Amino acid sequence: MENIKIELKPIGTIHTPFQQAKGTPIQPVKGKGTKGWVEVDSVYMDGLKDLNGFDRIWLLFWCHRASEYKLHVKPYMDTQTRGLFSTRAPSRPNAIGISCVKLISIDGNRLEIEDVDMLDGTPLLDIKPYAAKFDHFPVTRCGWIDAVSKEAQTKADDRFFKKE
Amino acid sequence: MENIKIELKPIGTIHTPFQQAKGTPIQPVKGKGTKGWVEVDSVYMDGLKDLNGFDRIWLLFWCHRASEYKLHVKPYMDTQTRGLFSTRAPSRPNAIGISCVKLISIDGNRLEIEDVDMLDGTPLLDIKPYAAKFDHFPVTRCGWIDAVSKEAQTKADDRFFKKE
Repeated sequence: MENIKIELKPIGTIHTPFQQAKGTPIQPVKGKGTKGWVEVDSVYMDGLKDLNGFDRIWLLFWCHRASEYKLHVKPYMDTQTRGLFSTRAPSRPNAIGISCVKLISIDGNRLEIEDVDMLDGTPLLDIKPYAAKFDHFPVTRCGWIDAVSKEAQTKADDRFFKKE
Repeated sequence: MENIKIELKPIGTIHTPFQQAKGTPIQPVKGKGTKGWVEVDSVYMDGLKDLNGFDRIWLLFWCHRASEYKLHVKPYMDTQTRGLFSTRAPSRPNAIGISCVKLISIDGNRLEIEDVDMLDGTPLLDIKPYAAKFDHFPVTRCGWIDAVSKEAQTKADDRFFKKE
C-alpha cells in the first residue's frame, strides 16, 4: 500500500442519551427504541432528499473517544481474547463505526432516529440508505459470535475508551 | 460540529479484476462469485485471528478514484435525480465505501474474497465481521430502491469517477 493519508471532515453530529461508554448499548439491536437525533451540517441538507422513504439508515461515524487500538481484545460479549478485526470493538486503526439505525423523521437538517448505540456528540461521517437487497446476506457461520451466551453483556463499559 | 479533522491511514489494499469503473458491479450482490483478495499490511496481521469463522466480512474502504461529490445525483439504478445520502454513490463528502463480501480463506495477511464491487487497488480502511444478529434488520420500506426496475443497471459507469 502506498503511504497515503486520507483526511475526513465530519458532516454533522449524532446526539444520544449516552454521555459515557458505560451503559451504552453495544449495537443498535441492543439499544432498541432508544431515541437520538442527527444534526447534519446545513451545507449538506440538500443531500437528504429522498432519504425519508427508508425505514433504516446506516450512520458512519468517528469513534472520537475510543482508546488506542490493540490487535487482540476481549469483546464485550465474550470471555476470550479475539483478533481485533473479528470484533466490532470501537478501538481500531481507523476508528470508524457503522450502525444501522431506525429513521423516524426528517425536519430540515435534523433526523430523529431510534436504536442508537453511540456516544452523545459523535462526529457523523456519512449517511447511507439501508437497502435489504444490498445489505442482507444469508450466512450460516458468524464465528465466535454464534456461540455468545444469552447472559452476555449487552451494554458497553470503558475498556475501549479514553479516560475522561 | 466543532471543526475537527480526522486523519486515516489505509491498513491494506483490495485487489479485484476491475481496473476501471465501467463494468464494475454496483454492489456485492451484483458481483456474485467475482473473486478478489485483500492484502492486509503485515503489522495488522495478528488482528485477523478468529476472522476465519465468519462467512462474510464488511470491508470499509476509501473510494480513491471517486470524483467530487454533488448533493443531487442520478444513481446507476434509477432514472431520476436523488438526494446523495439516499444513494450509495461513491462520490460523497467522506468517500467511504462499505461492502459485505464473502470470506473464502485467510493465509497469513492475505484474504481470498468473493462478491467484490470495488476497483483494483482500493485502499482498505477497516475489516469488521458480518454478524447476522447485528446486521440484519427486517424493513418494509427501502425508498426509491424498492421501485427499481428489473432492467436497471447492475454495473457501474464512469459518472462518479475521476477521469484518468
